[in-house]
Amino acid sequence: MNITAAYTDLYQITMAQVYFGTKPDGRAVFDYYFRHNPFEGGYSIFAGLEDVLEILETLEFSSSDISYLKQKGFKNDFLDYLKNFRFKGNIYSTNEGDVVFPNRPILQVEANIMEAQIIETLLLNILNFQTLIATKASRIKYSAKNGILLDMGLRRAHATGGYYASRAAAIGGFDSTSNVKAAEDYDIPSTGTMAHSFIQSYEDELQAFRDFAKMRPKNCVLLIDTYNTLKSGLPNAITVAKEMEERGDKLLGIRLDSGDLAYLSKKTRVLLDEANLKDVKIVVSNQLDEYVIKSLKEQGAPIDIYGVGTNLVTGKPDASLDGVYKLSEYNNTPRIKLSENIIKTSLPFKKQVYRMLDDNNMFYGADAITISSEDQVALMEHPFDTTKSLELNSYKHEPLLKQVMKDGKRIISPRTVTEIAEYSQSRLKQLPDEYKRFQNPHIYKIGLSSQLKKERDILINKHKY
Amino acid sequence: MNITAAYTDLYQITMAQVYFGTKPDGRAVFDYYFRHNPFEGGYSIFAGLEDVLEILETLEFSSSDISYLKQKGFKNDFLDYLKNFRFKGNIYSTNEGDVVFPNRPILQVEANIMEAQIIETLLLNILNFQTLIATKASRIKYSAKNGILLDMGLRRAHATGGYYASRAAAIGGFDSTSNVKAAEDYDIPSTGTMAHSFIQSYEDELQAFRDFAKMRPKNCVLLIDTYNTLKSGLPNAITVAKEMEERGDKLLGIRLDSGDLAYLSKKTRVLLDEANLKDVKIVVSNQLDEYVIKSLKEQGAPIDIYGVGTNLVTGKPDASLDGVYKLSEYNNTPRIKLSENIIKTSLPFKKQVYRMLDDNNMFYGADAITISSEDQVALMEHPFDTTKSLELNSYKHEPLLKQVMKDGKRIISPRTVTEIAEYSQSRLKQLPDEYKRFQNPHIYKIGLSSQLKKERDILINKHKY
Repeated sequence: MNITAAYTDLYQITMAQVYFGTKPDGRAVFDYYFRHNPFEGGYSIFAGLEDVLEILETLEFSSSDISYLKQKGFKNDFLDYLKNFRFKGNIYSTNEGDVVFPNRPILQVEANIMEAQIIETLLLNILNFQTLIATKASRIKYSAKNGILLDMGLRRAHATGGYYASRAAAIGGFDSTSNVKAAEDYDIPSTGTMAHSFIQSYEDELQAFRDFAKMRPKNCVLLIDTYNTLKSGLPNAITVAKEMEERGDKLLGIRLDSGDLAYLSKKTRVLLDEANLKDVKIVVSNQLDEYVIKSLKEQGAPIDIYGVGTNLVTGKPDASLDGVYKLSEYNNTPRIKLSENIIKTSLPFKKQVYRMLDDNNMFYGADAITISSEDQVALMEHPFDTTKSLELNSYKHEPLLKQVMKDGKRIISPRTVTEIAEYSQSRLKQLPDEYKRFQNPHIYKIGLSSQLKKERDILINKHKY
Repeated sequence: MNITAAYTDLYQITMAQVYFGTKPDGRAVFDYYFRHNPFEGGYSIFAGLEDVLEILETLEFSSSDISYLKQKGFKNDFLDYLKNFRFKGNIYSTNEGDVVFPNRPILQVEANIMEAQIIETLLLNILNFQTLIATKASRIKYSAKNGILLDMGLRRAHATGGYYASRAAAIGGFDSTSNVKAAEDYDIPSTGTMAHSFIQSYEDELQAFRDFAKMRPKNCVLLIDTYNTLKSGLPNAITVAKEMEERGDKLLGIRLDSGDLAYLSKKTRVLLDEANLKDVKIVVSNQLDEYVIKSLKEQGAPIDIYGVGTNLVTGKPDASLDGVYKLSEYNNTPRIKLSENIIKTSLPFKKQVYRMLDDNNMFYGADAITISSEDQVALMEHPFDTTKSLELNSYKHEPLLKQVMKDGKRIISPRTVTEIAEYSQSRLKQLPDEYKRFQNPHIYKIGLSSQLKKERDILINKHKY
């Protein structure tokens, strides 16, 4: 499946046809944001922007899309519009890889309303998923500390979503992936070990290890749990490691994929060390996530490399980020969507978001939202609690939304996954630890400029019953 | 991203290179099966086969894949092999859409071991995900009874995995999808309503409804919760419904996307009926799943159409199916993978699976596994409990594994999603209700032929320490 403009919800095209007939020149601003950090965490890592920009620059309906929509009953004049459809709008975005928080715009689309509507689904589909997975990867990295992380989830990923999962995992801090296609296209380091089937295809495990080691003189990891880890796999691996040494090669590591990983890794380390194989690394896998790795660390398990699959690439247990795309301005007038819950009421206007920094250049713990046209903003108010406010000018602050696309063309140069991952790590260093812990993390706050708050409340009252 | 043979784990290619150098003619049989039904359910719906067959028939490494692998250090003679790589094996499979259960082969691949290894990741990636989602869809259909089901999850799906999710949802029983691309390619009915942004783009809700209704004379669903459902959205929808009637059109339905759906749907039904709009349908959405729909049904909520998104396309809460691919035969000798847990010990041999039926053609509640070469199998034994057995010949039984691909070419004609969905419904009718309930469903059993059990135990003992 190639992504074309038909990679969208049907109602986007239905609504676009109505706009086409009634107000084809409408100009809209939509905000992309999410309402909750995934995994009950204290932050998220924004990912997917580069893919969105790359796709949008060339997005169009294919001739078979047009035939299909004709058959669905869309009108000829509108189909002519769709034939020439290109996204020609502006996008203002947070840097990909930045640390982000709920309920403030991460990205804004400013475009003809038909274009903004048709791209909505695609944009949500890519950003929601990659942000989910980059965040999961970041949490796993936080628990693994200096442990090396390998993404090996493709077989349990959501079909071709696994391709994007591997990209997002790298942004969130994974060192390499088993996913060849993603590694090739996104220039991510690729690694891998061996499967049980390799050993099973031999009459005996030792011969399997020997054949494998001969082909991988410097880069050989032996999987030692096919029959019996401590009585068969490990002794055979030690035999082969010694044979490798004799011919000037070196066993890189052994891998444990079942059993009690804390117990087995400790036993294995002792036996490897006793055999003078102190440099042989221990790789583990089997349903790992940030909590299992944290527990292994706490037990002092001597593990060097963690292979993480299903829980990473499916973003378990959440499996989704609740990102939304809300109209905030139409033809230069502010728009709102109400909810019984004020936190779910959308914020009107084209906006800017400022991050406040303390004197050590650490995040102060609050992002401030203003109307983008506001010049000087001195005071940030709590969104609902009228007793709380903060002097913005007492803190260094940096604008988070930068224009990345103008009239449908990207105006920032492409960044590699490695660059984005490095940037993400540098931004995470600015986030105090209390936002990173897994249990009841500190809540990063949000402030509104006085004008934004006032105008929002006017709109709420206008639509009140 | 186009799927090429590089859509795999690196270790498959690493292992293939070792086979290439040591035993390039090895012939392997691999079993695809999973260990647990997802969602703590009593059955699963097998999906993804047609996609696998279609992809395998033309799968190859692209020239950029080869360049990448050359740069990774793979040897020239092996790269020449990869350049000419085609899958030329045999596949034996359960029918797509059939009701399936854990721990028995659903599909078997019989091929050169390099080919069988290289396609492993792709096969698991597609079958695991589509089976997960078809199963979720089937559960949602079970709770919705005669309610109409609309898949609208693309925005929260795992990137392009959403394309396959919509296909699998249709197989599991969904009536239509919002996903235009999937609808177009897989010939699934596509439908949709309208978004809040449409209404927000107007100065007032009534005008928004009027414009939308004019473009959709017979197929108009109005979203009534943008500002206030009962005080604004519904009265405006009723006004527009009456205007439509005057010009010979007809409002199809209204949609509720927030608030208490039981309360609001009841209130809405009463008010619509009082306005003589008894035919106007009530569509609901907002974090629906099989449990929410069951509860709405139990409360007597008068809902006609359910729009299901995130929980469907991400297969929440499980988010993955634990399908595996295990070597069961190599060069005509049986192979086994041991585990501390005997249920995780793999079953050796190329096999056949029989489903037992009772006199009413209902599933009896047990599938029987034999060695494929066995002619007459009279007795099924419990996999571990030596006191339990069953006379196979007392029951009608049908073989589940049929050859679908021979020497890399499919030998069954393609089936449409609609055909597969209909077949799936017919098979579900043969499954007694006690396997379908959500809480503690009855456990569908498994039996081994005496010969398979005996041979398995010999292999277990051979590798015992």
